[in-house]
Amino acid sequence: MTLCIISGSSRENSNSEYFAEKAAASYKGEVKWIRLRELDIQQIHDQRHDESGFSPVDDDHTQVIETMLSADAVLFATPLYWYGMSGYMKTFIDRWSQAMRDPDLDFKERVKNTPSYVITCGGDQVDIKGLPLILQFKHIFEFTGMDFKKYFIGEARKPGDASKSNRLHQLEQFFD
Amino acid sequence: MTLCIISGSSRENSNSEYFAEKAAASYKGEVKWIRLRELDIQQIHDQRHDESGFSPVDDDHTQVIETMLSADAVLFATPLYWYGMSGYMKTFIDRWSQAMRDPDLDFKERVKNTPSYVITCGGDQVDIKGLPLILQFKHIFEFTGMDFKKYFIGEARKPGDASKSNRLHQLEQFFD
Amino acid sequence: MTLCIISGSSRENSNSEYFAEKAAASYKGEVKWIRLRELDIQQIHDQRHDESGFSPVDDDHTQVIETMLSADAVLFATPLYWYGMSGYMKTFIDRWSQAMRDPDLDFKERVKNTPSYVITCGGDQVDIKGLPLILQFKHIFEFTGMDFKKYFIGEARKPGDASKSNRLHQLEQFFD
Amino acid sequence: MTLCIISGSSRENSNSEYFAEKAAASYKGEVKWIRLRELDIQQIHDQRHDESGFSPVDDDHTQVIETMLSADAVLFATPLYWYGMSGYMKTFIDRWSQAMRDPDLDFKERVKNTPSYVITCGGDQVDIKGLPLILQFKHIFEFTGMDFKKYFIGEARKPGDASKSNRLHQLEQFFD
Repeated sequence: MTLCIISGSSRENSNSEYFAEKAAASYKGEVKWIRLRELDIQQIHDQRHDESGFSPVDDDHTQVIETMLSADAVLFATPLYWYGMSGYMKTFIDRWSQAMRDPDLDFKERVKNTPSYVITCGGDQVDIKGLPLILQFKHIFEFTGMDFKKYFIGEARKPGDASKSNRLHQLEQFFD
Repeated sequence: MTLCIISGSSRENSNSEYFAEKAAASYKGEVKWIRLRELDIQQIHDQRHDESGFSPVDDDHTQVIETMLSADAVLFATPLYWYGMSGYMKTFIDRWSQAMRDPDLDFKERVKNTPSYVITCGGDQVDIKGLPLILQFKHIFEFTGMDFKKYFIGEARKPGDASKSNRLHQLEQFFD
Repeated sequence: MTLCIISGSSRENSNSEYFAEKAAASYKGEVKWIRLRELDIQQIHDQRHDESGFSPVDDDHTQVIETMLSADAVLFATPLYWYGMSGYMKTFIDRWSQAMRDPDLDFKERVKNTPSYVITCGGDQVDIKGLPLILQFKHIFEFTGMDFKKYFIGEARKPGDASKSNRLHQLEQFFD
Repeated sequence: MTLCIISGSSRENSNSEYFAEKAAASYKGEVKWIRLRELDIQQIHDQRHDESGFSPVDDDHTQVIETMLSADAVLFATPLYWYGMSGYMKTFIDRWSQAMRDPDLDFKERVKNTPSYVITCGGDQVDIKGLPLILQFKHIFEFTGMDFKKYFIGEARKPGDASKSNRLHQLEQFFD
């Protein structure tokens, strides 16, 4: 059993990654981390309606998708930047439109029913202002047929805040 | 009087840009277009809490911000990609966190009270599934003190659909 | 062809009813109005899990449901009271849980696929603050299998405002 | 110190009331329960714009408001009925528009800054489908100046489910 954690954080020692680690500690199986900031992921060029389809892009996207599709569960961990997922994460997800049309990946079939999780964190009334992000992920998961199991919203402003959070106990049995 | 249109579309002849053009036709003043896909905008590296602050980035972000801040009104036009703004747009907005700390830009003061508009479009139940994006922009504008005047949600799937939309009359007096 | 308009407004000459009338003018068929304030509709007593089920209630609910189920399309018109549907409307909808279990009504089968519409209006940033209501109706329609066709959000504060609205042209072809 | 719990549940042994009780156990002070189903609360008749204002209503609303305004904190506990607060709760809140204009109550001044809490529970994907309700309460609290401290979404379908919930530990320090 493998859990794939895809992190959209832009910095080392990220609070959202801290929360994701705590959650992952309850996962019975291997955990694979993908930190998007360490990879090269280009913006999408929407060629869905081009006769010749999408032009191949020489970056790390396909490899990340392959890791994601091979996992038994996927956790998306992203800081709440400007009341949404980070640009790293959004750039990655936009390219799914391309990956879905890559016959080698068999994206649609393999992603279907994958247990999926979201962890985010932020500071300014995050329990409320993070909700549009949760609603967005719900639509994403519905469209792809992924199975939205659970989300966690953490509160953290400065580096290190996550480790002092009084919500850590909510993560202890996150995957049970 | 100047209106700055910031487009997050990833392709030429974009439906969201078509809707934005139609809206802009009712603007009494100059219209400046920024198409993010034609520019180099890097992802943010969150250094808000670094002692030395943000490292300068050699790309087009500052120039776009300067154009945006010089305008009397700003229209954000983005396709609905995966139930949110495009990666181009999100990457651009994430970097506001850096721009806000650039004393040369005087971002916070100049952006305050700017009349702000959102135009998006998509296909799959866009009037409903586009709402998390509208809620996100609301939070963005509240945080910065921008004045959220109006939004328009268009329906379009294939290139060219916007020109056949039965909602075009809603844009005729968009800026009146 | 029959359109059933269910109004949750609490007063005569209501703005939401004015908007609903304008919309209904484009309906090709008969229009039946139900003004909940003129009827006796009791709060639900949740007996879904009682062995003997729901106790019959002597009020106008069944008759309204029968009219609604007999129609070819349903329009819910409610003022935005406290950022949601009115108490009249909510009290009426809560009782659907009871109606769904009344074998004489055959609620579930008959309501399925009914073209459904929502019109609301309010004052304070209604285009934004009315969105939770639209999201709620979306869930309601998904649960019942009703077909959410369209919604309209009007702006009106004082009695008579609706007739001066600059959005009336959006209603001219509401049912086309 | 007094906590006022206002329950919108329609039945005895309600799951939302169970969760509210568990939360209230951490409150250092007196706890006062108001169960709306046991009271007579009429629907609002919107007379905000009538020259003579609201006609007095002979029911229990004023007394409940007085108890609420006298408390140091208020907890709204409501089952998620049809993806929103119950009709009991909505009918009660609609009448605030009247109470705000009653000079004897001094509603606006006294309600301001009151620490406010929401507990809801439901079954069908309640963590997602309960979010419009949370957004609605946010708007309500912003309008009145109440201080939205925290919310809890419980999962429960059948009577008794709440007592077996694996989220009860989240309530242990609800008021700390």
